[in-house]
Amino acid sequence: MLTDSDVERWLREDVGHHDVTNQVPGETTGRLVAKESGTVAGLDAARAVFSYLDCAVESSANRGDRIEPGDVVLRVEGPARAVLRGERVAVNVVGHASGIATTTAAAVRQAERVTDDVRIAGTRKTTPGLRGVEKRAVVAGGGDTHRLDLSHMVMVKDNHVAEMGLEGAIDHFSERASFATKLDVEVETVEAAPRAAAAGADIVLLDNMTPTETERAVELVAETDGETRTEASGGITAGDVADYAATGVDIISMGSLTHSAPTLDLSFRTGAP
Amino acid sequence: MLTDSDVERWLREDVGHHDVTNQVPGETTGRLVAKESGTVAGLDAARAVFSYLDCAVESSANRGDRIEPGDVVLRVEGPARAVLRGERVAVNVVGHASGIATTTAAAVRQAERVTDDVRIAGTRKTTPGLRGVEKRAVVAGGGDTHRLDLSHMVMVKDNHVAEMGLEGAIDHFSERASFATKLDVEVETVEAAPRAAAAGADIVLLDNMTPTETERAVELVAETDGETRTEASGGITAGDVADYAATGVDIISMGSLTHSAPTLDLSFRTGAP
Amino acid sequence: MLTDSDVERWLREDVGHHDVTNQVPGETTGRLVAKESGTVAGLDAARAVFSYLDCAVESSANRGDRIEPGDVVLRVEGPARAVLRGERVAVNVVGHASGIATTTAAAVRQAERVTDDVRIAGTRKTTPGLRGVEKRAVVAGGGDTHRLDLSHMVMVKDNHVAEMGLEGAIDHFSERASFATKLDVEVETVEAAPRAAAAGADIVLLDNMTPTETERAVELVAETDGETRTEASGGITAGDVADYAATGVDIISMGSLTHSAPTLDLSFRTGAP
Amino acid sequence: MLTDSDVERWLREDVGHHDVTNQVPGETTGRLVAKESGTVAGLDAARAVFSYLDCAVESSANRGDRIEPGDVVLRVEGPARAVLRGERVAVNVVGHASGIATTTAAAVRQAERVTDDVRIAGTRKTTPGLRGVEKRAVVAGGGDTHRLDLSHMVMVKDNHVAEMGLEGAIDHFSERASFATKLDVEVETVEAAPRAAAAGADIVLLDNMTPTETERAVELVAETDGETRTEASGGITAGDVADYAATGVDIISMGSLTHSAPTLDLSFRTGAP
Amino acid sequence: MLTDSDVERWLREDVGHHDVTNQVPGETTGRLVAKESGTVAGLDAARAVFSYLDCAVESSANRGDRIEPGDVVLRVEGPARAVLRGERVAVNVVGHASGIATTTAAAVRQAERVTDDVRIAGTRKTTPGLRGVEKRAVVAGGGDTHRLDLSHMVMVKDNHVAEMGLEGAIDHFSERASFATKLDVEVETVEAAPRAAAAGADIVLLDNMTPTETERAVELVAETDGETRTEASGGITAGDVADYAATGVDIISMGSLTHSAPTLDLSFRTGAP
Amino acid sequence: MLTDSDVERWLREDVGHHDVTNQVPGETTGRLVAKESGTVAGLDAARAVFSYLDCAVESSANRGDRIEPGDVVLRVEGPARAVLRGERVAVNVVGHASGIATTTAAAVRQAERVTDDVRIAGTRKTTPGLRGVEKRAVVAGGGDTHRLDLSHMVMVKDNHVAEMGLEGAIDHFSERASFATKLDVEVETVEAAPRAAAAGADIVLLDNMTPTETERAVELVAETDGETRTEASGGITAGDVADYAATGVDIISMGSLTHSAPTLDLSFRTGAP
Repeated sequence: MLTDSDVERWLREDVGHHDVTNQVPGETTGRLVAKESGTVAGLDAARAVFSYLDCAVESSANRGDRIEPGDVVLRVEGPARAVLRGERVAVNVVGHASGIATTTAAAVRQAERVTDDVRIAGTRKTTPGLRGVEKRAVVAGGGDTHRLDLSHMVMVKDNHVAEMGLEGAIDHFSERASFATKLDVEVETVEAAPRAAAAGADIVLLDNMTPTETERAVELVAETDGETRTEASGGITAGDVADYAATGVDIISMGSLTHSAPTLDLSFRTGAP
Repeated sequence: MLTDSDVERWLREDVGHHDVTNQVPGETTGRLVAKESGTVAGLDAARAVFSYLDCAVESSANRGDRIEPGDVVLRVEGPARAVLRGERVAVNVVGHASGIATTTAAAVRQAERVTDDVRIAGTRKTTPGLRGVEKRAVVAGGGDTHRLDLSHMVMVKDNHVAEMGLEGAIDHFSERASFATKLDVEVETVEAAPRAAAAGADIVLLDNMTPTETERAVELVAETDGETRTEASGGITAGDVADYAATGVDIISMGSLTHSAPTLDLSFRTGAP
Repeated sequence: MLTDSDVERWLREDVGHHDVTNQVPGETTGRLVAKESGTVAGLDAARAVFSYLDCAVESSANRGDRIEPGDVVLRVEGPARAVLRGERVAVNVVGHASGIATTTAAAVRQAERVTDDVRIAGTRKTTPGLRGVEKRAVVAGGGDTHRLDLSHMVMVKDNHVAEMGLEGAIDHFSERASFATKLDVEVETVEAAPRAAAAGADIVLLDNMTPTETERAVELVAETDGETRTEASGGITAGDVADYAATGVDIISMGSLTHSAPTLDLSFRTGAP
Repeated sequence: MLTDSDVERWLREDVGHHDVTNQVPGETTGRLVAKESGTVAGLDAARAVFSYLDCAVESSANRGDRIEPGDVVLRVEGPARAVLRGERVAVNVVGHASGIATTTAAAVRQAERVTDDVRIAGTRKTTPGLRGVEKRAVVAGGGDTHRLDLSHMVMVKDNHVAEMGLEGAIDHFSERASFATKLDVEVETVEAAPRAAAAGADIVLLDNMTPTETERAVELVAETDGETRTEASGGITAGDVADYAATGVDIISMGSLTHSAPTLDLSFRTGAP
Repeated sequence: MLTDSDVERWLREDVGHHDVTNQVPGETTGRLVAKESGTVAGLDAARAVFSYLDCAVESSANRGDRIEPGDVVLRVEGPARAVLRGERVAVNVVGHASGIATTTAAAVRQAERVTDDVRIAGTRKTTPGLRGVEKRAVVAGGGDTHRLDLSHMVMVKDNHVAEMGLEGAIDHFSERASFATKLDVEVETVEAAPRAAAAGADIVLLDNMTPTETERAVELVAETDGETRTEASGGITAGDVADYAATGVDIISMGSLTHSAPTLDLSFRTGAP
Repeated sequence: MLTDSDVERWLREDVGHHDVTNQVPGETTGRLVAKESGTVAGLDAARAVFSYLDCAVESSANRGDRIEPGDVVLRVEGPARAVLRGERVAVNVVGHASGIATTTAAAVRQAERVTDDVRIAGTRKTTPGLRGVEKRAVVAGGGDTHRLDLSHMVMVKDNHVAEMGLEGAIDHFSERASFATKLDVEVETVEAAPRAAAAGADIVLLDNMTPTETERAVELVAETDGETRTEASGGITAGDVADYAATGVDIISMGSLTHSAPTLDLSFRTGAP
């Protein structure tokens, strides 16, 4: 959840102690306008920025909308000083979130050429301080948040397996995790995948496997259990996401959706349109 | 300045209310290791993360160092639970900052092929909440922070000029700005550049000009005044930074250094090396 | 995750601007001692309080331990002023959390007389500001956290069903929820329970049913699907938890674990034991 | 004083990063309704929650009102998403505060059967983070806040007396405390009570005495000084509060008012009544 | 109570995003040294500043000590960067608090020429954000904090009296205030003073009276009641504090102690002494 | 930038947990009125205080206006409870800021008797937590903020010069500072002044020099370079500011503007005028 404190911190870091350029009297209007095509996200955050500054603000696009150059996504009205003060922060956060949404949407499109049955998911590789904004941007792009924080879903990792064995680790965490929490179990080999499924994994994460290995692991998991989902992860890029989508895997998770998405270019225009 | 509150917020958003996976007894060690080549930054932030968690932490690289795959950049020692808890946040912030440093260093190298007399600078197009981390990462990559916040330097923009005229706007802000504050004046035409210099600009920002226009504007400014610096800005990319560097301009500012730099890939390894 | 800011707020509200009674020179020791039997929790929070005050602190009991009058659960050493300053807050938080753990443990024991196959779970009915402390206290008492926040698990409620129909609501949220998130579907009638299971609920919450109704619903759910769990909820007390446990239901959730647990009585003793 | 930061923290801990269930378009209304009889408190906190979320909110009961099942205590109007988001936190805080008010009112009624001249007071045994909310709830129930924090009133405790003697400790703190601050002196024996009064105590706290001892101490204090008040404290419960009230003591303080009061049951209903 | 958040805010506002001057390697020492005579205060705040920065710090003076030019009041040791970073904030806070202590001590000395039986007290006219620091500085100078905040003591003001009458207002607040809270009743005329005492005021504040009026009011109050204290307030300065002290009044409160005290001059010296 | 968090902290510290005096029903109005002549500042902060409390508020003076006794500078309307709650904090912050503005304006007037070409500037010797409020108050009084924080302008100090030599230190920081940042170089002798100018100082700070020395240094700097400004600093008071102004120096910086300015006396009146 985005809070007033977050917005306050963003504005404070951008304004400093004494800004002489924005001391403009009177009222003005402003429009946040796309300069390139993409998928829009982060509008809630921009609205919160201008609300904090006591401006009236209205979205003219919805999260996840495809936008084209010239499209207005947000309209603002208020004291000129406030509108100007929020401008840069609003552009930065919408550009950042929309960049993630656009990158996600591109990966989703790649996958959809092959199948409708795979989800493109983010990871915990988000920018510090922006977990929620970025996760919601992934959703805006048609993706899946994956786990939101360490408490949302248990991931059984290689170091757990090294210490307790695969079945031991799954038992250990099944007992300790709430009934409300899923178990995602990371396996390094094709052979381990059906074992994890049989031992109670809700999801089996196929780590750093080739598409061929992934396909085989998916088949083996399917044989043991109709309920366990499979996830491909580990350095998957826009270039090979379709290959993984073709394996029948349920989820493809990509850190690059959040940690390496370029911004979407927008500008903020004040005064009469 | 990075504060304990920043670190606390980063950790809190990643951990949530009840994480069962990191409840590991005993002490452990950890190492932050490069997986690809680049320029390292953000180590102070990672140190602050582990210090907040009461771990001993030591950098084994300096801000701005060139690192290669396998290089250890940070060593940590402390309660296993604390080390594991800080891991993801530390990787995220160092990856993010190093990505910016690496992107900056690449732009600097492009420019240096042509001249040693140009500075590659960031902008205010930073990720909300990370202004300081990102500005210092630009410095780590050999770049210049540009203005840190609205109060650091006055930028006279096209809307000011539209309202008060070029000389009028410069006078207006010269009077209102502290003697401690520089004036950076944005011009849209080659002809306006020497006028801005003559009127008292400390820096003339040549906005969205071609390399040819930039070169001419730089010459005109040099003729009027030996002190005024020139800055090229507006959609300059790694592809044409060298062209701008060749114009004799003093500063090239690039929003892409902070808003579109992909992460640098690092991993965190626990236990004996 | 408990943060320094939380501890700071607790201390600040208890100390005020100028406390003349704790201005004691020198060092001292302190012990947190049980005055009645129960299950201990909240020790991490008490440790954090004294760490914030730069005291050395050591737990002499583990979360979830059964304690008896006279048992020492925490030992502290540091400046007398700091030890005295932390005392009341530490007693308050450990007493509060241990009260919840003790209440939970009693409910678990009631259920265990009947079966080992039921989980006693908390709810979102926690004290504002203490979500994590209270959820972890439920775990200390042998209970299950249930969902930690609105983002942890989706609960399909009667108002969703009223609007979209049972199957419609389940479809709606299955599509929107992450693969990492479970669906808990609330039903008001026995007949609706197997429909919810068939439509894809991970858990079916049997709301305000009698034990007899609960038993029947559990049977019907079991017939449709071997995977769907059942949860009894709605005003269940220590008095009838065993009756619900006997129905074969998987989870019994009780708001009273957190919103109505009396404190566990402890005292803080300073100086030599 | 309850702040926006408090409310923000309560909402943030309940919502998490991505809640799909409350993404409801349009406006709605809500009513906070009593499900059992009691004394209402915490309405200001609930109002603050909905105000933070930009809902219109109106109390339909006053702090300290006796309420019956079905009584509406708060009405809310606003975006459906905001109303739903505030619901659980509002119920939790009003239930918690009203539980304290109801418990206090019951103790007050017990005492009033015997006398109108005794005050039932809380202690510093409050839930961390909720000092103000709980103290004001005690007042809503007809009780007395007792000291609000360590700086509000000086309490001379047994360890001070052990170190400096009774008269010595009273002198010590009379000198150091502001003229604005009262002195409450804790005594362990009947004999010490009049000595404390004579030495300058504003209040003499009769610690862990039986009603008979308390009565005797009250008489002895009355003989020495017409101004000094007496306070009974130490494990007094609803069961014996009347016995203490009958002793003529001025104040009876009870930790259980805040640390062990069960919640008052309320529900939140949305849509047309 | 001074918190880490306070210190963090002070440092953050002084450092900004990128300070190149304090990037000094190695360790250093520092000493906070008096440049003029006065009474020292604020050392706890300075210690907290350097502790936040992980420096070792030791006071070499106590709160309230008289210091002379050249006296060292604080010694620091730590990373050069940290020591330099804390320097200005530490000087500012100790100078500010010591200025208040010194001003207070001067007023106390003026009063002591006439009598030992009057207290010189501060008011709520403190610098926003520094209530505790300033109140403790008044104490360091030998003064009395007066009420710390609105909840510490009830002040019955002229607008209350206008609305409810003098006795009515005193009754109104006696009933509503805790037994732990004193009543300070402001009167505008000599005649009203004994009425306020008779009606139950703990303190009668003689507002804006001349010394002669004050003396008469003090006498009248003494006649009615041996317990009620008297307070002179309203624009009393160092120049006439002795005149008021001679009236027999118990307390003289002066806003100028906190709102108009000049700083005490100190410097911070690094490196070997 | 002043934030809601700042205002919240100011109010919280003044109100405490339970204030019985301001529990007044109904609406009221209030006016902030000058009681002495001076220059007004801090109105934005007072507006923010009342806005936080949901009152309507309107300034009836502008920052920097000269005000006379009886002048209304702010009008407020809202719930009586809220208006009364904000009163003391508003008076404190406006009094403090206006005291600084008035002190600054007096120094400016002293200087203007001699020349129009000097700026009277503040320093970093501000009250912790109020950097922005105080810097803007200096501006309101006709002064110059000087550097806002360590990151705004680089000051080369004697310890830098001791370590690296004058020219060495200037080179060192010219290289490390952004092009957006000025260099202010402190010199202890007249002879060093032109050397600093020649080496690239934007401003030469003439530290603790007499007016005669200052005049000579100003001349020498002027000879070497037409661009370098000069600054006089070090214990300059209202008494000798005109002497320094007469030297031709460009800037006179005075710590006393912020660290020793007495408050400006204002009162807050509620109800009909």
